[in-house]
Amino acid sequence: MTADVCVLGVGLIGGSLLRVLGPTRAFGWNRSAPTASAASEAGFDVSTDLADTLRRAARRDALVVVGVPLPALGAVLDAVAEHAPGVALTDVVSVKGPVLDAVRARGLGARFVGGHPMAGTAHSGWGATDPELFRGATWLVAADDDADPDTWSRVARMALDSGARVVASTSADHDAAVARISHLGHVLAEALALAGGRGGDLALALAAGSFRDGTRVAGTAPALVRAICEPNRDALVAALDDCLADLGAARDSLASTGTLGPLVDEGHRARLAYEAARPAGGGDAPGGRAAVTVTPGAPGWLEALREAGSAGREVRPAG
Amino acid sequence: MTADVCVLGVGLIGGSLLRVLGPTRAFGWNRSAPTASAASEAGFDVSTDLADTLRRAARRDALVVVGVPLPALGAVLDAVAEHAPGVALTDVVSVKGPVLDAVRARGLGARFVGGHPMAGTAHSGWGATDPELFRGATWLVAADDDADPDTWSRVARMALDSGARVVASTSADHDAAVARISHLGHVLAEALALAGGRGGDLALALAAGSFRDGTRVAGTAPALVRAICEPNRDALVAALDDCLADLGAARDSLASTGTLGPLVDEGHRARLAYEAARPAGGGDAPGGRAAVTVTPGAPGWLEALREAGSAGREVRPAG
Repeated sequence: MTADVCVLGVGLIGGSLLRVLGPTRAFGWNRSAPTASAASEAGFDVSTDLADTLRRAARRDALVVVGVPLPALGAVLDAVAEHAPGVALTDVVSVKGPVLDAVRARGLGARFVGGHPMAGTAHSGWGATDPELFRGATWLVAADDDADPDTWSRVARMALDSGARVVASTSADHDAAVARISHLGHVLAEALALAGGRGGDLALALAAGSFRDGTRVAGTAPALVRAICEPNRDALVAALDDCLADLGAARDSLASTGTLGPLVDEGHRARLAYEAARPAGGGDAPGGRAAVTVTPGAPGWLEALREAGSAGREVRPAG
Repeated sequence: MTADVCVLGVGLIGGSLLRVLGPTRAFGWNRSAPTASAASEAGFDVSTDLADTLRRAARRDALVVVGVPLPALGAVLDAVAEHAPGVALTDVVSVKGPVLDAVRARGLGARFVGGHPMAGTAHSGWGATDPELFRGATWLVAADDDADPDTWSRVARMALDSGARVVASTSADHDAAVARISHLGHVLAEALALAGGRGGDLALALAAGSFRDGTRVAGTAPALVRAICEPNRDALVAALDDCLADLGAARDSLASTGTLGPLVDEGHRARLAYEAARPAGGGDAPGGRAAVTVTPGAPGWLEALREAGSAGREVRPAG
């Protein structure tokens, strides 16, 4: 029998999770009444009473998934600490260090394991939810010091049940990685769009596929881009510094010698490595290698999770 | 009756042009014999004898389209100057200023009008040719001082016959625009790919749609990226300087205040402007406005072409 899941906030990620797990296993809460009504009309059990929902989660020992944006996190965690301080807890917020800090500050760390499904962000809200959103996506399940093995297993099983592949790392390593492959990409897309805009109508008329693809995520609502990127300040500043150094070197090389220098070859090699790391089938880990099975709670299990993650390999809980 | 076209170099662009115009109207030359054979077997008239092909073009008053990469341009133009100095001449190279200089240096400027179809570059060679390559694409036809009206009309008609929309500007304005919407995008894609690669296997495993799209053109062969970007040195350095200033300001704002500053809103606005400038249908100009009809050779025709281009509007030759 699979355990209950309580989803707090049924926007794109939380709502899609509710849909894929189904109403017999998952229930939830949403602050906005119209969204809760829409979810209820679709056959899901979504309340607007946070205290009541949390007490119910505690009674049923449900895994509580915090699916609200980072600015709303503190108030929701305050309610968890008040009404369900002992529940197993995870989240789906795009940055992990600040969530971990907020959870620990409220004494909720003992049964908390952070998570982050790497799924789309261009649209938001219940109307954009999709039970297939996580199919084939990577779901980061954190392997921080003192993680509770039982909660880790429950979060990983929920991710697998949603169709995702599980990859593990510390929260800090996650934040450094997504600064490079997600947040930096948002910033560069905005900069490329702005450069095109500065070229005026002629430039926009000449823009073709490379501009369309390179600026796609600049179509995301600015408030959402900020909410995703800005909480990861330190890691994003470091990624931007590296990137500015690479771009500055290419610029200086082009100006002085007429060639872009090593950037083109290095970037091409990295893109080929990324393509090679894509899984060929749903059941295999990135790179086509089998998933690493880890027994949560066994000696060295966190180190085994982190080692697999640093090699880009999928993990699965034993049993 | 439509005029003959002689295509020099039947790679992706030249070969696709040969295919869409068809063997009764177009013939060509290619330096490599296997490619010429493959084109001949497909029913096209493609020789490996450049002098003979050019003499034939001169006899038939064909429009000669130079479709070789920039490094091979000089030798081909030398042959044009020797064997067919009076032909109507255009090109499909991705940068216009250096081509114009090379043409004028050989005394071939009187009947030369540069061109640039904004069509895909990820694959190359005869094997990648496609008669539909130009369908809905923008084809820049240069409106430089002293352009020959008859040649301009022939180049524009050829582009329209290929399914493209025609936009006009000076060669210098074209080069400044494509530095922003094409060449800068290549450089940023390489930098993003490299940033991801520096994050190691964990980062590549977590990479999702924004990284895939943002690095797509980094999959292009490095030699081709260099051949496209590096000849546009001055304009690309200027675009990089603007972009580095924007990125540096966002980096400093993030580090000091925790927000990315105006970049996110400005980039989003530019992306929306780009989306709004996409044509709704094949027959309409960018932005849904009707094409501007211009009579080549009429008083002020070059200014009319440039004015339409700077507004991002499609143009058509009268008659």
